[in-house]
Amino acid sequence: MKNANEVAIRKLIEEWASAVAAGDRNAILAHHSHDLLMFDFPDTKNGIKAYDQQWDFFYVNPTGPISFVPRDIVVTADQNVAFVSCNVHCEGTSARPLDLRLTIGLRRIDGEWTVVHEHHSVPTVEERFIASDAV
Amino acid sequence: MKNANEVAIRKLIEEWASAVAAGDRNAILAHHSHDLLMFDFPDTKNGIKAYDQQWDFFYVNPTGPISFVPRDIVVTADQNVAFVSCNVHCEGTSARPLDLRLTIGLRRIDGEWTVVHEHHSVPTVEERFIASDAV
Repeated sequence: MKNANEVAIRKLIEEWASAVAAGDRNAILAHHSHDLLMFDFPDTKNGIKAYDQQWDFFYVNPTGPISFVPRDIVVTADQNVAFVSCNVHCEGTSARPLDLRLTIGLRRIDGEWTVVHEHHSVPTVEERFIASDAV
Repeated sequence: MKNANEVAIRKLIEEWASAVAAGDRNAILAHHSHDLLMFDFPDTKNGIKAYDQQWDFFYVNPTGPISFVPRDIVVTADQNVAFVSCNVHCEGTSARPLDLRLTIGLRRIDGEWTVVHEHHSVPTVEERFIASDAV
């Protein structure tokens, strides 16, 4: 059973992902807080300005139209705090096709659901972190 | 200003991290849901059994006493949903010293704060994901 908050947040995430695919920088930032904390693939970004700049690299030297498609979206929401997990398949950037894992934390601020935390990661390829029986 | 939920959740996370350092498997699992979703470094684990098994690899061939120290803990909590971000410094495992980023999602289930989502990642070393001007 989904509550109204969960429906609203899923829509926010889907629209954000569409904005990423479209390269619409204003729409990407539309529901993000000024003091956002982002754990990005290679490092951590603090604040909306650093978050915005991080997208510059994403859009450098595209290899084709960009797709950024979230799937397996799970929204867990209360009245004022929520978090979301999903997998994202991305193509068209200089990084070639990739699958990333995404966790997003939100607060309702002045009545509006607002992203205050994003955690993006790609599965590591460093052998020291991978069990030998892992598939 | 911290509310009572934020204080309780910070304590839960700190005790969980202490349990990891101590290798206390029961305490590691004590506040986790049966259907937990874990984005781990190399892959995704679904459910408490897979989550438990994932710790087997963590404890293989330790190089010394294990430390697992969370810092920069930020707790965002409502009455029934919360999320936490932190950095963790870990030493003593076969993987050598490492710094990981951690996001944890919780729900209050039957009155008890319960971890339903964990996202662990290490900064990627794959050049295709790293901007050339990144420090």
